[in-house]
Amino acid sequence: MTTATNPRVLEHPERTDIRLAGVLHALSDPVRLTIVREMALGEGDDFACSYFDLPVTKSTTTHHFRVLRESGVVRQLYSGTTKLNRLRRDDLDTLFPGLLDSVLSAATAETARDTAR
Amino acid sequence: MTTATNPRVLEHPERTDIRLAGVLHALSDPVRLTIVREMALGEGDDFACSYFDLPVTKSTTTHHFRVLRESGVVRQLYSGTTKLNRLRRDDLDTLFPGLLDSVLSAATAETARDTAR
Repeated sequence: MTTATNPRVLEHPERTDIRLAGVLHALSDPVRLTIVREMALGEGDDFACSYFDLPVTKSTTTHHFRVLRESGVVRQLYSGTTKLNRLRRDDLDTLFPGLLDSVLSAATAETARDTAR
Repeated sequence: MTTATNPRVLEHPERTDIRLAGVLHALSDPVRLTIVREMALGEGDDFACSYFDLPVTKSTTTHHFRVLRESGVVRQLYSGTTKLNRLRRDDLDTLFPGLLDSVLSAATAETARDTAR
């Protein structure tokens, strides 16, 4: 028997399967961290991948969003042919209280130091 | 002119050169996170690499400590032929307030969940 899988339904880890190592790895890339910081500004909003002005190719962008999705940092769903992305803030805050906020604050502090140089 | 470098002096980033992406990457590996968690229990103490009971080879252990050193998470210095390691907690807390603690707390929470499964 073959099982038809729907390519329009993307795989996500359940909340309980999200791992700290995976989340930290996802956030350890500057481009992915830029994406997450922008999403955090519009909490609960859905963002198309094309919303973000990133210094990488489209296929690299797709790769970065996949890493974010597979680690449990974002949820992706199709709306027509567009993939929409939403930060999984509730899941992350429940599993790792304060972690996302401290990373976002650290990123803001680093950007401020870089600008002041 | 050639410059003699002392192989016994290991290179470290200055505090201001420590980058968030590098720190998150260093902490995103389960073995490295185990090392950092143990070091955090004995703050200010120096730990030989051999102190840690890790499920990896000696050369992999050396690699992990190098990643931790080059990212600015630990300071390594020689004592005779032994490399001693110390967590750079002051530097990290100054640059990224609360980040290390939130990662350590997240790791503790995850271990507790894993144990309860």
